[in-house]
Amino acid sequence: MESPLAARVRSGDVRAAARLMRDLDDRLPSADGVLRELFPHTGRAQVVGITGAPGAGKSTLVDRLVAHHRRAGRSVGVVAVDPTSTFSGGAILGDRIRMQGHALDPGVFIRSVATRGHLGGLSRSAADLVAVMDAMGKDVVLVETVGVGQDEIEVASLAHTVVVVTVPGLGDDVQVIKAGVLEIADVFAVNKADREGADRTVRELQGMLGLRQGQRPADHDHAHHPLRPEGPEVRATGAEAEWEPPIVRTVALRDEGTAELAEAIERHRSHLASTEQGRARAAQRARAAFLSRLREQLLEGAVARLEEEEGRLDEIAARIAARQADPYRLADELARRLRRDPGEER
Amino acid sequence: MESPLAARVRSGDVRAAARLMRDLDDRLPSADGVLRELFPHTGRAQVVGITGAPGAGKSTLVDRLVAHHRRAGRSVGVVAVDPTSTFSGGAILGDRIRMQGHALDPGVFIRSVATRGHLGGLSRSAADLVAVMDAMGKDVVLVETVGVGQDEIEVASLAHTVVVVTVPGLGDDVQVIKAGVLEIADVFAVNKADREGADRTVRELQGMLGLRQGQRPADHDHAHHPLRPEGPEVRATGAEAEWEPPIVRTVALRDEGTAELAEAIERHRSHLASTEQGRARAAQRARAAFLSRLREQLLEGAVARLEEEEGRLDEIAARIAARQADPYRLADELARRLRRDPGEER
Repeated sequence: MESPLAARVRSGDVRAAARLMRDLDDRLPSADGVLRELFPHTGRAQVVGITGAPGAGKSTLVDRLVAHHRRAGRSVGVVAVDPTSTFSGGAILGDRIRMQGHALDPGVFIRSVATRGHLGGLSRSAADLVAVMDAMGKDVVLVETVGVGQDEIEVASLAHTVVVVTVPGLGDDVQVIKAGVLEIADVFAVNKADREGADRTVRELQGMLGLRQGQRPADHDHAHHPLRPEGPEVRATGAEAEWEPPIVRTVALRDEGTAELAEAIERHRSHLASTEQGRARAAQRARAAFLSRLREQLLEGAVARLEEEEGRLDEIAARIAARQADPYRLADELARRLRRDPGEER
Repeated sequence: MESPLAARVRSGDVRAAARLMRDLDDRLPSADGVLRELFPHTGRAQVVGITGAPGAGKSTLVDRLVAHHRRAGRSVGVVAVDPTSTFSGGAILGDRIRMQGHALDPGVFIRSVATRGHLGGLSRSAADLVAVMDAMGKDVVLVETVGVGQDEIEVASLAHTVVVVTVPGLGDDVQVIKAGVLEIADVFAVNKADREGADRTVRELQGMLGLRQGQRPADHDHAHHPLRPEGPEVRATGAEAEWEPPIVRTVALRDEGTAELAEAIERHRSHLASTEQGRARAAQRARAAFLSRLREQLLEGAVARLEEEEGRLDEIAARIAARQADPYRLADELARRLRRDPGEER
């Protein structure tokens, strides 16, 4: 029997979805049950990650993509992943200051989420929010991360297609960033492409992509597609066509390049659907979601047990800090005890 | 009895330390044992995190700080946290291209580390590297993260003092970043301060710090220190002096402001030593290190058990992706079984 809340979420009810998201955030066990009910009804939405360097104009770009999909009659969900503090815990930016242009559109559902769970590990909340929006029947879910590094890699484990946004003139570290994201980028957007240095940024990206190709044998002599001078994205390499991240120039503030970006994302979707890579990516996403949940369940159980046996976590931390307790021994012994002992029955 | 490797590390032997770090990276159980031996001898180094937006010139700034400490006769360790891919796993930037100016100085020990463990969670490697450098007797350990978001928060859980580096003209998202790091920043460095817009960046930071102060009662009417117009960092607020992050202007390329930055870091150290905040921060660091290790131990044990019982993780992921297996049920039941069953004996 489907619960009333799950049924309402599946019908696209915004208030039901918002309530479920709140309950998930509050870690109500009932919310977990609803998520489980919804799971078989997920996997339909196209999930697109938008990530990249700060200052790149990701929010504006997301805004433009939302408008683009809305014009085509698609319903859209937006999950904005906020950088948060370990101390305050909550999302710093509310949903209110984001995406105000779509605030009154019932076809757009926007939520912010903190990147950290209360025990300091990666939160599974972003994945949960995507699942709820998926189950609601959203055609497209855009996941925007402010951040470079782990947040970026996290978004890769949620999305079908990852768009890495960069801008001209970010400086030397850009090389580092590009190196870090090369493997997760399915599409590059060079935003603010009307700025000086855009050509150089595109060339640098091409150079890095070329370098990567150079590392693969028999990959050198492909012909450039005349209509896409910035890199044809599908090339035959033996058994299966390989995806080459296209580089799209955008000026999000003036809504330039939005259609081209959306089209590049669409081409990537078709590519995944027509190759084994789609299935491999889906398995990768499932693996990440599963491990993320498992990690959190295990840690919660372990900390509860630890606090029963050894006192409050904060006191233990103080003892460790004073070198009176050994964190390695504590962690290892607790992990072993949890494997050996009956523990609490549920 | 102390093992020979632990003794050599404690004597500052670079080759022994490098070997231990490799062994930790390869996850040899013997390396864990050495780390446990070293633990009582840690907690002496001053650990300083250097983080902030990409393009901010953090590496150059770290380089300048290293030179500053070396001139004062202090030994220095540098841990560079690289953004890495979930797929390749390794650190993308080698140590070779970093900090070449100090490559021949035996008083400087530099290591890069990937941010991710092989199961996709936050790696404890950065913390391990800091512990080894600490045990080696390094006076100062600088931890540099490329990244904004989780990496940044991670560095906060390792360091005594967190320096957030920003630059003029990063654009609108800077506000977001600043909001995200306000709570972890002990010192702000506005680098490339000779650029247009530096005054505005400083004013914005002051504004955000002011906003934060505004949220605290009875915090409004403090007198500005005449010699530090950009914000006196210690103010009396009732029982204990409270730290106000100073804002230091630097031009790392020309080595300007390095001494001022080092001095601000030093003042923060003294502040921690003379207040309860030092102890609280130490406990917080210990808590994070402990949880990080526990999380990894638990997940490894659980995945090993899962693969024994249910088949390879990759196959399970494929079943989840095909909606044939329920990740919620799998994770929850596994967590429960691990609590209940005898499991493997060790």
